[in-house]
Amino acid sequence: MTDDLLIVHASELVTLRGPRRARAKAEMSDLAIIRDGAVAVSGGVIVDVGRTDSVLKEHGAGDVEIIDATDKTVLPGFVDPHTHLVYAGSREFELELKARGKGYLEILQEGGGILRTVSDTRLASPGTLFKESAKRLESMISHGTTTVEAKSGYGLDRTVELRLLETARKLGDEYPVTIVPTYLGAHAVPPEFAGRTDGYVDFMISEVLPEVAKRNLAEFCDVFCEKGVFDVDQSRKVLLAAKSLGMKLKVHADEMHSTGGAELAAEVGAVSADHLARPSDDGIMALARKDVMGVLLPGTPYSSMSKEYADGRRLIDLGVPIALGTDLNPNCWNESMQFTISLACHKMRMTPAEAVTASTINAAAALGLDKKVGTIERGKRADLVVLDIPGHAHLPYKFGTNLCSRVVKDGKTVWERQPF
Amino acid sequence: MTDDLLIVHASELVTLRGPRRARAKAEMSDLAIIRDGAVAVSGGVIVDVGRTDSVLKEHGAGDVEIIDATDKTVLPGFVDPHTHLVYAGSREFELELKARGKGYLEILQEGGGILRTVSDTRLASPGTLFKESAKRLESMISHGTTTVEAKSGYGLDRTVELRLLETARKLGDEYPVTIVPTYLGAHAVPPEFAGRTDGYVDFMISEVLPEVAKRNLAEFCDVFCEKGVFDVDQSRKVLLAAKSLGMKLKVHADEMHSTGGAELAAEVGAVSADHLARPSDDGIMALARKDVMGVLLPGTPYSSMSKEYADGRRLIDLGVPIALGTDLNPNCWNESMQFTISLACHKMRMTPAEAVTASTINAAAALGLDKKVGTIERGKRADLVVLDIPGHAHLPYKFGTNLCSRVVKDGKTVWERQPF
Repeated sequence: MTDDLLIVHASELVTLRGPRRARAKAEMSDLAIIRDGAVAVSGGVIVDVGRTDSVLKEHGAGDVEIIDATDKTVLPGFVDPHTHLVYAGSREFELELKARGKGYLEILQEGGGILRTVSDTRLASPGTLFKESAKRLESMISHGTTTVEAKSGYGLDRTVELRLLETARKLGDEYPVTIVPTYLGAHAVPPEFAGRTDGYVDFMISEVLPEVAKRNLAEFCDVFCEKGVFDVDQSRKVLLAAKSLGMKLKVHADEMHSTGGAELAAEVGAVSADHLARPSDDGIMALARKDVMGVLLPGTPYSSMSKEYADGRRLIDLGVPIALGTDLNPNCWNESMQFTISLACHKMRMTPAEAVTASTINAAAALGLDKKVGTIERGKRADLVVLDIPGHAHLPYKFGTNLCSRVVKDGKTVWERQPF
Repeated sequence: MTDDLLIVHASELVTLRGPRRARAKAEMSDLAIIRDGAVAVSGGVIVDVGRTDSVLKEHGAGDVEIIDATDKTVLPGFVDPHTHLVYAGSREFELELKARGKGYLEILQEGGGILRTVSDTRLASPGTLFKESAKRLESMISHGTTTVEAKSGYGLDRTVELRLLETARKLGDEYPVTIVPTYLGAHAVPPEFAGRTDGYVDFMISEVLPEVAKRNLAEFCDVFCEKGVFDVDQSRKVLLAAKSLGMKLKVHADEMHSTGGAELAAEVGAVSADHLARPSDDGIMALARKDVMGVLLPGTPYSSMSKEYADGRRLIDLGVPIALGTDLNPNCWNESMQFTISLACHKMRMTPAEAVTASTINAAAALGLDKKVGTIERGKRADLVVLDIPGHAHLPYKFGTNLCSRVVKDGKTVWERQPF
């Protein structure tokens, strides 16, 4: 058996070796960095990690590709645990309305908002859906993301929701990236059920969820638990139905209002509670107690021109394990975990080390993949990012550009920066 | 004479044709877009602009390279009118201090702040200075910037200030980009003049400025007019001395405190007043009356974790012509005019059209280059950016990535996106 790949002389090899679970509090600051570090890969799996001299001695002989990472930082591939990857169309026209101070209702009146995307997505052919989503996915991979959660939620009816999940699966088959599909039928109430939210909840539970489960189209079920969308009782009903079908759970919790979403996530045993801009103190304590991952999405207030960022600092200090995600969607066209990390440090008072943990091992835990990816340790998948910076602290500091020089998925280089 | 280059079928050809001067108020919203647009280039100069069918008829025959810009947007190359491009070292360690709420003085005590960079820069060899600055410049060009202002200001003594300006010139000679050098000796008071600001002002005027002028090393002179740095009288003295030597003027004005910097800029006939987070109403009116360009730098409050963005919306509405710049420096490692545009729309309430004007023709006017670059018009230099978006409104909307598919300088492609 020959080694496939050897990366050597990393200025910082950020291994994040440690407990195989969501990390909280001070654990989030411990990156377990090896200076002048090296990693050996064979058969798509990490087989050795250490200082360059010792790894070279063991694995440097024979026909192995050696990559020199001098002055560079090597991280586990980014895991993006919250995206709405699959949709059609765009809503760039809303940006000027938001800049002019128009509110949510006025944007709806101008033909914007989520139902605009539902309409565009329902009308799009499967080919168009795939093509538009693939373009986003290519950008995400080139920015170092090697695992992507992808939610449905712009079809809302049975046919198109299933199509979105099928498209997510196909993207995972055709691109060098792991896709984790999530059913989010409870993203909004579709026009045909307007004023009949309970009827739509019943429809999802009786008509859609069983088919999703039967065809194994989604690993997770998620619900947009929010004032005026799905209340706690409606959300619970959908989540418990999904759980009984064997699906894992996520909750869009306490994004715009404090609705008890965090408490619900803890109650139903969700893997993650996402957004958390306005959780109650009880909700925060419930998440910490049950080790529910808080997935923070700083791109969302940025694109919404809001100042209401989740208080990452406080959540970490209170013991909630925290992950970061892009929340890529037509209202938040954010493809980059690097920019997400920069926002987390600049707007949520997270440190660079915490933001790195939140984008790798904790994000993997938010998808139930922390035993497979998210750290640079023997036996894990060789999903790696080589960044053209001498240390991880440069990652949020040098913002707005792509710092990747190489992206490795399952031991293979899938993107590489061209020389200038 | 053969045509060098023909770009055709641009979804939006954003020409910005119009008055050859700084644009204010409603003029900033008029991008003069041609749909299905084309531009013909010969000898590095734009020779025709119009709809694809008519430009193709005139210029499509013969041995011409044709670039298909279907579904893409073509803009004038970005002009970055405010950067501190040339320095050595980095200050990434300050980010965590800022995230932990440490103030300016505490960061100084931890060995940070501007004098840290002065020390690093004085110690760096000319080769190191060139190499570190060149890496930033390559990133800027690959993000669509074709003209870059570059200030000195991290040497402060005579030898190193001249070295910084020589380095800027050399970068312009060796890279496909126009560099506009600015002498900013009045960036800080160096340690050897601590407590003797007037003495340092005299030193600059008698020892450095004459040499800068004689060797033609700077087109502009700039001053950091700020409470506790250089007051209005000291700033005026430096600026008038530079003016008498034939240099054009800029002022770092009213960034942290309302010090009368905007009024001073108008009084001395500066081409631009930069930052403007806290100008007085009198200062704003003086800028509008004298057509002094306001150069706004939204990367600075972003990197400083401040909420004090300049009020771009109000300044535009009051008639100050507005340009945007990155303010690239060790405290604000911002190489991308694209991200700067996104910040301007999200944080300063500027519209996408205003931000595009502010990054092209108005930024050119901030450097006195509005007759040569900044629009797509016959006779102008063929500095062009092809963006992989169907319209300019997508530019701030799709944030945190590089949207360029091609960068053209003087008619030649100098950067091109690799296919995934």
